[in-house]
Amino acid sequence: MSNELLQHIKYPSDLKKLSRDQLPQLAQELRDFVINIVATKEGHLGASLGVVELTIALHYIFDTPNDLLVWDVGHQAYPHKILTGRKDVFHTNRQLDGISGFPKRSESEYDTFGVGHSSTSISATLGMAIASKLKGNTKKQHIAVIGDASIASGMAFEGLNHAGVTDTNILVILNDNAIGIDPSVGALKEYLTKAKVGVKPRTNTIIEALNFNYFGPIDGHDLPSLLNILEKLKTIKGPKLLHIITTKGKGLKQAEEDQIKYHAPGKFDAATGDLIPKNNDKLPPKFQDVFGYTILELARINKKIVGITPAMPTGSSLKYMMQEMPDRAFDVGIAEQHAVTLAAGMATQGLVPFCTIYSTFLQRAYDQIIHDVALQNLPVIFCIDRAGIVGEDGATHHGVFDIAYLNCIPNMIVAAPKDEIELRNLLYATSLGLENPIAIRYPRGRGHIIDWRKPFQNIEIGKAQVIKEGTDIAIISTGTIACNVTMALEFIEEKIGHYHFGFIKPLDVNLLNRILQRYKTIITIEDGVIKGGFGSSIVNFANQYGFNNKIITLGVPDQFIHHGTVEELHDICGISSNSILRKIQELQ
Amino acid sequence: MSNELLQHIKYPSDLKKLSRDQLPQLAQELRDFVINIVATKEGHLGASLGVVELTIALHYIFDTPNDLLVWDVGHQAYPHKILTGRKDVFHTNRQLDGISGFPKRSESEYDTFGVGHSSTSISATLGMAIASKLKGNTKKQHIAVIGDASIASGMAFEGLNHAGVTDTNILVILNDNAIGIDPSVGALKEYLTKAKVGVKPRTNTIIEALNFNYFGPIDGHDLPSLLNILEKLKTIKGPKLLHIITTKGKGLKQAEEDQIKYHAPGKFDAATGDLIPKNNDKLPPKFQDVFGYTILELARINKKIVGITPAMPTGSSLKYMMQEMPDRAFDVGIAEQHAVTLAAGMATQGLVPFCTIYSTFLQRAYDQIIHDVALQNLPVIFCIDRAGIVGEDGATHHGVFDIAYLNCIPNMIVAAPKDEIELRNLLYATSLGLENPIAIRYPRGRGHIIDWRKPFQNIEIGKAQVIKEGTDIAIISTGTIACNVTMALEFIEEKIGHYHFGFIKPLDVNLLNRILQRYKTIITIEDGVIKGGFGSSIVNFANQYGFNNKIITLGVPDQFIHHGTVEELHDICGISSNSILRKIQELQ
Repeated sequence: MSNELLQHIKYPSDLKKLSRDQLPQLAQELRDFVINIVATKEGHLGASLGVVELTIALHYIFDTPNDLLVWDVGHQAYPHKILTGRKDVFHTNRQLDGISGFPKRSESEYDTFGVGHSSTSISATLGMAIASKLKGNTKKQHIAVIGDASIASGMAFEGLNHAGVTDTNILVILNDNAIGIDPSVGALKEYLTKAKVGVKPRTNTIIEALNFNYFGPIDGHDLPSLLNILEKLKTIKGPKLLHIITTKGKGLKQAEEDQIKYHAPGKFDAATGDLIPKNNDKLPPKFQDVFGYTILELARINKKIVGITPAMPTGSSLKYMMQEMPDRAFDVGIAEQHAVTLAAGMATQGLVPFCTIYSTFLQRAYDQIIHDVALQNLPVIFCIDRAGIVGEDGATHHGVFDIAYLNCIPNMIVAAPKDEIELRNLLYATSLGLENPIAIRYPRGRGHIIDWRKPFQNIEIGKAQVIKEGTDIAIISTGTIACNVTMALEFIEEKIGHYHFGFIKPLDVNLLNRILQRYKTIITIEDGVIKGGFGSSIVNFANQYGFNNKIITLGVPDQFIHHGTVEELHDICGISSNSILRKIQELQ
Repeated sequence: MSNELLQHIKYPSDLKKLSRDQLPQLAQELRDFVINIVATKEGHLGASLGVVELTIALHYIFDTPNDLLVWDVGHQAYPHKILTGRKDVFHTNRQLDGISGFPKRSESEYDTFGVGHSSTSISATLGMAIASKLKGNTKKQHIAVIGDASIASGMAFEGLNHAGVTDTNILVILNDNAIGIDPSVGALKEYLTKAKVGVKPRTNTIIEALNFNYFGPIDGHDLPSLLNILEKLKTIKGPKLLHIITTKGKGLKQAEEDQIKYHAPGKFDAATGDLIPKNNDKLPPKFQDVFGYTILELARINKKIVGITPAMPTGSSLKYMMQEMPDRAFDVGIAEQHAVTLAAGMATQGLVPFCTIYSTFLQRAYDQIIHDVALQNLPVIFCIDRAGIVGEDGATHHGVFDIAYLNCIPNMIVAAPKDEIELRNLLYATSLGLENPIAIRYPRGRGHIIDWRKPFQNIEIGKAQVIKEGTDIAIISTGTIACNVTMALEFIEEKIGHYHFGFIKPLDVNLLNRILQRYKTIITIEDGVIKGGFGSSIVNFANQYGFNNKIITLGVPDQFIHHGTVEELHDICGISSNSILRKIQELQ
């Protein structure tokens, strides 16, 4: 691997010393650098490979960090990080105390806005551009780079709709590769696709109708074209949009050919591009697959079942149902608000909608859950994936607020099964028809039961389980964190009781009363924020009924948790099996 | 007032007995009926007057309630309610146990989807249309009526973007009157305005680019045209949009001329249309005006201050600043998500953004608060209007969840001043520069201090106040509900202490420790949900530090509260001065 040019580049000022002719070689070196590190350290590959030329061109032409550059979502920001002071620490990407996998303000002045969730870049950039205008700075440039999947989200439209009536120096670069994590969907995507075919139109009616000056589409891997157009755009005032066409995974054959898998491929052979084969046969299933396969089984039996995902067919495993029943399983694009209210509309007509959304992204549909689902008490089933600490994706992606933000909503049932079989049976139970909406939360990653496809058994809503009776201390856990408790208790004598509350709301008050009467000390454990969470509910119940037990609430403390492995972060929060063990020993 | 035709109409089946020629007269009678009742009973006038013809035409041509009709927001649904079985109870509109001011599923089968918040109609209708398709029903019609202010919101775009790639029977009627509650804004609005000028274009590139069949624009008060086009549209398959032009307040001169005031004008003379003059001179100010006037004062001193409202310049009183400083105060349209991230972008550049949003609508920007503001610890100041029970607007509009949903977010300061002067001083204190984001909640309506424009005094973040020391029972309240406590305590002897926590987060732990040590019994009171709220924080604090006080948490119980006066609903929740008094007497 040649490193001839890249080795001399630490910051954009070094980049600017190169001649334009040298930039294609730099692009090759930068691409190799990304591939080599991500091959062993893992991370988001495809999106970054697609913007190597764009990243070079932006830092070459613009005066970053004085000119302000915002990357939407941030999956594509590895080349940016490497060219802005972080080449030498790039191998620590996504590791505990290493650099973040996403742009992050506290990490670098070149990261002007922290990202992770989609479609924020236009609003944030416009805020910056308005600030410059108020300060009388007419030269400063403000650039949002946003993909075609992200620009179709409502929030991006709101940003465009406002920007179009300002006279700010905002440049939106639409990085159109026809794919987000899964292929893009929707009417706007079809429109953009048409615009790319045939002679370059140099016009785009939607964008121009919104008062943007439209440029493109151009080949986003053609450095001379990129440099020329960006140089020209620097001199054009007012809101403008540059439409570039790129290939996700560009430069690595397999990544171009299987863009979904190579979005974040895990370890692969940097020389050949081949994935390092994993032997998953004997591993327990991912929770998303328990959902994905079970929903398909249930949908075969019950014709009223429909599935909805906002742009996560692969990540949620709804893809299995989409493949077999394309009429009944819907990828609505990055549109969480729409997804939830669509489900509500379906529920009014007697369908049984399973709406699967990552916990952190469900925050986007909070109002719709309250106003469109819960207030009307429509039995929508929310399958909340990636609940709890998610690990390497870090603070923007942890699904730690859902218990707190759902617990306060009337009519909602909030459930957190402890393992694959309970999740499977809960999906079955809800598919039989509920009178309320329900949220079922489960984590990223794998469970621990290999033989999970058991015959369905019904689950009684609101019923908790005795895992183990004890005498001294009762541990009440909710969700899959039960597993950490079980591991901790292996090392401890018999006096500790363990109870699993699969339902956070409603609480099993009979069992809870019995526990509060029996044990002086209670420890609650949840993979979510302590404030307003499950433990808080237990404490409030105890207070309401005059119990004076010592109750210790373990969970995610009142601070943002950054990136690392799930185990490392659970340890930081005090909910790893080790920290649970230590806590119990302290109390004994 | 003639009632010749209307008196015979209870349901759309009666309407269908009329000839087309009779419909204009019916429109006149219906308009008069609305005006006469709203004149004395109050309510939303302008929007309903604007859709009298459309409502008649829809129920005349379509087979409601088999054909499914969704009114976006629902301000305009009075004629619909009157023609669908609720004429005789229309005078109970918005009263306790009366009909709701918005469409509500539990009230009528003609109300196919409950509304109140903007821009949900397309998603809900599409959900219904997909359900019909899955059931093999190809005849059923699914109609969303949405205003030009609402269609510019991101959620509506998400709905259109999905609908455009389906082959469902969905008809979107764009009711374009160029105004929401305040005049519409944004690039799309400018585009629509251009489309209306000159020869009717019969084309609309944005809508058509999204795969909708576009019809219009037509005059929405011309019944024959409406009937003809709707009849035609019934036979056209697939997604289609009908653009109609209407006048908000149509048929009442003053309502047409002052559309903002006559959106919900209060009492007026039905014969002349004149407002019944109120003598507000000696009344205490509305909290929104304390915000509106104070922010303007502060902005005159501090050039870094900017103001943002999503479509509520009048309701939030940001209009005062917008009038004097149009460059620094922004109405971004119905775009709460964008508003919050825009503010975050501004804060990165050192501006001091005051983002004012109604509590219930801030739910729309929950993810942006967490992900774009709090995670980056950007000092955005959220001025949360209409916090707590709002009264007649009912369940869709109460701002009762904010404490619970904000309290769990790291870095956030959550404040609830007890009166106008404290609100004013808190705005001042935050304008001096904070290191954290802060949410300041205050209610709908007026305070109780006439002489509130006192010189600014700084407020120490996190400091609570002793209102009154006692011995037996301590009442800890947060926010303006303190006033109810004070009233209750007038009737009670000296032993009751009263403490005001202007900060819900961080708690004043010094004072709280002292209270918990001094009193055996504590009552917490808040105008918000009990679950996860202020009282819950107090209970958790007491538990954490081993206090065993009896703590009673008063607030909004875990159910949706419907409409009525604020006093009636506070009574239902147990937080009116009477119910507080009764609770104390019970305990003594």
